[in-house]
Parts: sequence; structure tokens; C-alpha cells
Amino acid sequence: MRRELTVRGTRDFYPDSYDRIRFLFESWRKTARSYGFEEIEAPMIETLELYRIKSGDEIVGQLYHFTDKGGRELALRPELTPTVARMIAAVQNQIAKPIKWFSIPRCMRYEKPQKGRLREFFQLNVDVVGEDSETADLEVIGVAIDSLIDLGLTEKDFVVKINNRDFVSEYFRHEGIDPAIEHGLFKVIDNAPKAPPEATEDALRKLPLSEEQRGGIESYLRLATAEDLRSLDFESAGRDSLSRLFGLLDTAGFGPYCSFDPSVVRGLDYYTGTVFEIFDRSERMRAICGGGRYNHLLREFSGQDLPACGFGMGDVVLSEILQDRGLFPPYSPPLDYYLVRISGEQLPLLLKTARVLRRRGLRVEYSYGEQNVKKQMARASKLGASKVLIFGEDEIARGRLVEKDLATGEEREVSFPRS
Amino acid sequence: MRRELTVRGTRDFYPDSYDRIRFLFESWRKTARSYGFEEIEAPMIETLELYRIKSGDEIVGQLYHFTDKGGRELALRPELTPTVARMIAAVQNQIAKPIKWFSIPRCMRYEKPQKGRLREFFQLNVDVVGEDSETADLEVIGVAIDSLIDLGLTEKDFVVKINNRDFVSEYFRHEGIDPAIEHGLFKVIDNAPKAPPEATEDALRKLPLSEEQRGGIESYLRLATAEDLRSLDFESAGRDSLSRLFGLLDTAGFGPYCSFDPSVVRGLDYYTGTVFEIFDRSERMRAICGGGRYNHLLREFSGQDLPACGFGMGDVVLSEILQDRGLFPPYSPPLDYYLVRISGEQLPLLLKTARVLRRRGLRVEYSYGEQNVKKQMARASKLGASKVLIFGEDEIARGRLVEKDLATGEEREVSFPRS
Repeated sequence: MRRELTVRGTRDFYPDSYDRIRFLFESWRKTARSYGFEEIEAPMIETLELYRIKSGDEIVGQLYHFTDKGGRELALRPELTPTVARMIAAVQNQIAKPIKWFSIPRCMRYEKPQKGRLREFFQLNVDVVGEDSETADLEVIGVAIDSLIDLGLTEKDFVVKINNRDFVSEYFRHEGIDPAIEHGLFKVIDNAPKAPPEATEDALRKLPLSEEQRGGIESYLRLATAEDLRSLDFESAGRDSLSRLFGLLDTAGFGPYCSFDPSVVRGLDYYTGTVFEIFDRSERMRAICGGGRYNHLLREFSGQDLPACGFGMGDVVLSEILQDRGLFPPYSPPLDYYLVRISGEQLPLLLKTARVLRRRGLRVEYSYGEQNVKKQMARASKLGASKVLIFGEDEIARGRLVEKDLATGEEREVSFPRS
Repeated sequence: MRRELTVRGTRDFYPDSYDRIRFLFESWRKTARSYGFEEIEAPMIETLELYRIKSGDEIVGQLYHFTDKGGRELALRPELTPTVARMIAAVQNQIAKPIKWFSIPRCMRYEKPQKGRLREFFQLNVDVVGEDSETADLEVIGVAIDSLIDLGLTEKDFVVKINNRDFVSEYFRHEGIDPAIEHGLFKVIDNAPKAPPEATEDALRKLPLSEEQRGGIESYLRLATAEDLRSLDFESAGRDSLSRLFGLLDTAGFGPYCSFDPSVVRGLDYYTGTVFEIFDRSERMRAICGGGRYNHLLREFSGQDLPACGFGMGDVVLSEILQDRGLFPPYSPPLDYYLVRISGEQLPLLLKTARVLRRRGLRVEYSYGEQNVKKQMARASKLGASKVLIFGEDEIARGRLVEKDLATGEEREVSFPRS
């Protein structure tokens, strides 16, 4: 095998690994549908311009992009949110709000492949558009949590870390910090949990902050609970929104899965209000899921603001967790019937029978070449067939076939299946 | 809406059009599984080298290809067969034959978009590898036919045109034609049904052929039926294989869907033996499906021959046919319950109830904002809810809710759903 023919950071899904990814997709689909989301899809390629509009430089640097034979600058989609914004903008005056869409896009990013990160991956993408209330945030976080629960994970396995970008901005403004440095400050905060404390201190020292302001940021990073938020002595719409959201999460039974976390601010520029990330409780992995509110992104496409909230949950980290926990079902493709012929004479009847059973939706196999009965029976067992149907001359003369149940060994005569 | 943001030749799948493509995918999947095929998937990008190996120049000219940031020459897959060959080569000594795989890949080709042809499309890809008999060809053609039947098409709608590349080569050799010009001759033959007769004559005149040889080719193109084949006065293994295949197709009940067609030779260089294309009977469309045997492609990857046969059935032409015939089901996302609250007081109980019902797999919606009952009921009707559950103060005090069937108008009291 010429290994250099496989592209780095991509995966081949053989039947057993395809079965696992499909298990994941079907679980995602079931949960998103139960929440009333409708499924969409979109092109794998978009104009590079789509990502330049509002995704921040960071993501453009991670794109696979190229110029096509017609001179167009194109990119392989690294996420679905800009596509969703583009699609919504085209129809936003014609459809009822809230718009609730989900998708399971294949995405590509040119990043260094490592544990939990590949260049090609899938994600569950969920968005509620046209609704600014915390109830919409609740729905979005709820579908993320119930997706993980449906896959067999529990509150012992994962935690949803929640924050609010408005609250963070209001906090910093209360500390007298210049809004112009907010972007850089968000990066430091985003990085804080992964970095040693000295690195965070160093990074803060490089920003134009007074000693008092740095102290304020360090206090901010020590906020640990929703109660800590309530004790703050300034007005903050973002904090009030967070409180309402935590109230709703508790009410709906999601409380044990959720906690406030000051370090969650999300890297992408387009987020506003509620932001969240979901982590494995062991915290040895990258985030399972990330999302939040992006109330101004639509304006870039349609000239009109339309509030929106959503998330992306990738398959790579999640699959590692499911694999670790033994939560993927074993692969055993169902085979309902293996048809066994005594000689080539019975082939015409066998072919007709195969087709009748298959058109009933049953999974049916037989030997393509001439093989003796023993070999055919061995193949039937190997493929895990539930039953074999034996085409013997004497039985056929009487209009019958022999059906053998491979689990019990029981045999009985049956008449020819007819459509 | 900034239209220039949509890439030419691609499609956005809004919920209604996604529903149609998914209907198609699920039908394909069901039929392929009934034939015992196992599903696989693979990367969207491959090395350009993979396509250079054996696909012929034609397809490389139609590729989206580019150099990545690491200097690798990559291409977006235009079809799945080279990928399948690469994947098989990596495991061919470890798995039992025949290998029966299917996939529903997204593919991309840089071609001029027109009716029935887009730059981005999906296809059903089916392959039997490790089996050289006509029975394997039968299985491959059978799954293609039964896929179309499952979608609601009949023998009046489509025809499978079948030929055999060995037979064509043997015929030409019998006419004394130089094998070196066979490739060019195949192109003329492939094009003959779409071109005016003069154009075919002209194209033949440009090849180094004697008048007698040209006459032989014209006789070849006049062959019309499997009977015509039998009357030929020379030995041909390809013709014998075709006869056996037509015999099997008749036996299995596929006879009315199939006919011999001398112009079907398939453009790609890697085909050997059986080749086929499926057309709308009206012949106003491009082929619905094309495939055949490719017994030597694996050798390019693993150094070993491994016989193989397969096809690709694209979604674009097929969707146009299904749409024309009204065979797509109407889009109506199922909504099991819409939950209606009299006031905000009932929100906590409503949220708990929504979650209980959703975790049962039911599709449940409610109003995110505060709305009066009339508006909530109107939204429930608009979304096509089967039932509403009304959260009224008095009923709740008695531990009850009112369930209303929107189809019949009937109301009854029910107790709170509990998980």
C-alpha cells in the first residue's frame, strides 16, 4: 500500500468505523429533531470572502483556500455558521421566526493534526435565529446536553461552562479598561485555563493596564460560581441575562450539567451575549462543543440585525470519549438470509427469491461463484446470517425450501417467498 | 442578499430541499443494504496523484485541485472509485472476498454547470470487489435497478444500456483495427448517440482506418439487440460474457429494464468487461448512472489484480426525474406536541414537560417569548402540530393538563408526563 496517497489529518471510514460515525450522526439527528430543529445542508466550498466578512483573522489563517480555474477565491468550509448566516439572509423576510436549523456538516481546517483535532471532521451544528431571549439560549444548550445524554454520557462525564460576553465587557468597563484592548484581553482569558499562571500574568503585563486593572482581571478570573456573580456591586445586563439563563437551566433539569466559568469567552469575533463550551470532566481533552449568541453576524449579510444563537459539536473529541467509555455499539451488520444452493440448477429460483426478499427490505446474500454446500454454510455463519434458505432439488420439486435458523439449529420447510 | 457569495454550480439545501435529498439517500441506503453492501466513507480531499494514476486525463482536467500550505498537491474527489481502490489496497489481504461496499459521497467537478450537471453533487457508489463472475455484475446492476424502483420509477421510466469492453475490443480486432487507436475510437463511439451522424462519420474519418474498417464500425454501431450479438461469426469471450449476463438478468426479473447498446463504452480508461449506463427512457437527460467492471485498477495500488465492478448514480439528474414525476414526498416536518402556557407562571412545568417528551423521541415545540394563548395556538397550527398540551393554572392545581388533538379538535385531561 502506497501510504503517501492518504492525505494527512483525514480519515478513511471502513464499514466498522463508518458504523460508529453513523451511530453518532443518528443520535445527533434524533435529539435535534426532538427539539423541533429542521435539517439543512450546504456546499462544501464557499467564497473566501464569506469568511473574511466577520470570522476574524484567526479562522482565515486556518482555512484550506485556493483559486479555482475561473479565478474565484474559494475556501473549504471550516465551520457552518457563516454559511447559515448567508442562507438565512437570503430568506429572512419570507420565513417565520424563530428559525431552528441543524446540520451535520463535514468541515476542513488546515491545522496541525493532534489528539482530538484532525484536518477533516464532522460536527453537529445547531442554530436558533430570530429570538433574543434566554429561552432560546436554553434550547440551544439543552439540545447539546441531551445529545450527549442520548449517546450515553452523564453529568459525571461532562460539564457545560457558561459565560456572557456582555457581562465580561461590562466588568472590564467597570474596571476602567479601554474597550479597544478588549479583543486582546479576550485572547488572554481564553487561553488562561491552558496556560501556567505566570504566562497569563506575563500576557496581561504586555497589555496597557494599570496595576489595579490587572488586579481586577485577576479577581474576575477567580469568579467561580453563579453566586459570586450575584455579589458583584455594579449593574450589568450581561450578568442579569446569565442569572436568568442559569435559572431556566435549573428549572429544566440541566443544572447539574452546567457551571459558570469566567475563562469561557470564545475566540471568534462574532459572538455576543451567552457563550459556552462543553468539556470532558477530566479536562484532558479539547472542548467537545462550543457556541453562543451572535446577534450581529446577520447584519453583515442582509443589512439587518437578527439575533441568533448556536453551537458546533465536533465528532473527533466526542468519538474519543465514546470509544474510551465503550459507548459505541459493536459492529455487526444484520444479515437476514443467506441462500444456499445444492447445484447451479437452482440458481434461477435462488435469484428470483433473493430479489423478492430484498425488496421486502431484508438483507440477503448468496454465493456468487459455484461452491459446495459446506462452504456456503460456512460463509453464512461467518457473515452472521440469522437464517439460511436451502435450495434442494427434492424440496423444490414439492414447491418447498428448507429454512434453517442458525441460532437454534432448527429446520423447517417453507414455501417459495413471493412478492 | 449578496448573491456573489454563493459559489456557482453548488446548492443550498433549505429544510424542504434537504428533506428531498435525504429521502433519496435513505432509499439508496435501504436498497444497498438489502443487497448486503456495507457503508463506508472517505476524505473529501485526496492527493492529485491518486487521480493521475489511472483515471485518464479527462477527469484530471475536470478536477478542483490546489496546493495546500504544506506544498501538497490535493484534489477534491470527483468520484469515489479511486478512493475505494486505495482503501481496498490497504486491507485486501486481510478481508474476505467478495468485498461489498457502498457509499453516498459528496463529489466535486469543475465542469460547466447545466441541466442535470452541477459542480457539486452526491452519488450512490456501489462496488463488488474480488469476484469476476457475471453474477457479481448482476448484483451491481440489480442494486442500481432496485434503487430506482424503490424510488417509484418503473420500466417505462428508465433503461439500463449494457455492453462489454472486451467484446468491443474483440470486434475491432476482428475488423483488423490497430489496438493503439482503440482509446480514440471509444471516444467517438461514446459520443455517437449525442452527435449528428455526419459528426460521427467525420470523427471516424480522422482516425487511421480503411474504408472497410469504417464500414465495420458502422455495422458495429447498428447492432441493436442481444440476438444481433449471437449472430456474429467470430469467437469473442466478451460477447459470451454479455450473453451470460443477459441470461442472469432475465432470470432474476431484470430483463424488461435492460438492453444491449453498442454505443455504451464509458469514457474512463480503467473499465474492462461489462459496462453500463442508465437513462431516462425519454433520453432528454444525461445518464442517471454509469458503471462497469474495472479488473486492473487495484493493481495500480497494491501490485495485485483484484477483479471489481461498480457504479456511481448521481443525485442531480435523478432528482430532476423524481421531481418531474412527483415522486418526492411533500415536506412536512412532524411535530408531535406544541406546549401552550396561559402565563409565565407555568414556564417551569412546561420546560420540564418538554424535556420529558423530547427524551422519549417526540418532537416538541413551545413559544420562547411571552405570547397570548391565541398566538400560541396559531403557531401550533402553522407548524402542523398533531397535539397541543395546554398548561392552565386550574388544571395544574389538580395535577392535570389539557391535551387537544388539532386534527379532530377533541380535548381531554391528562396527567403530567413523567420520564
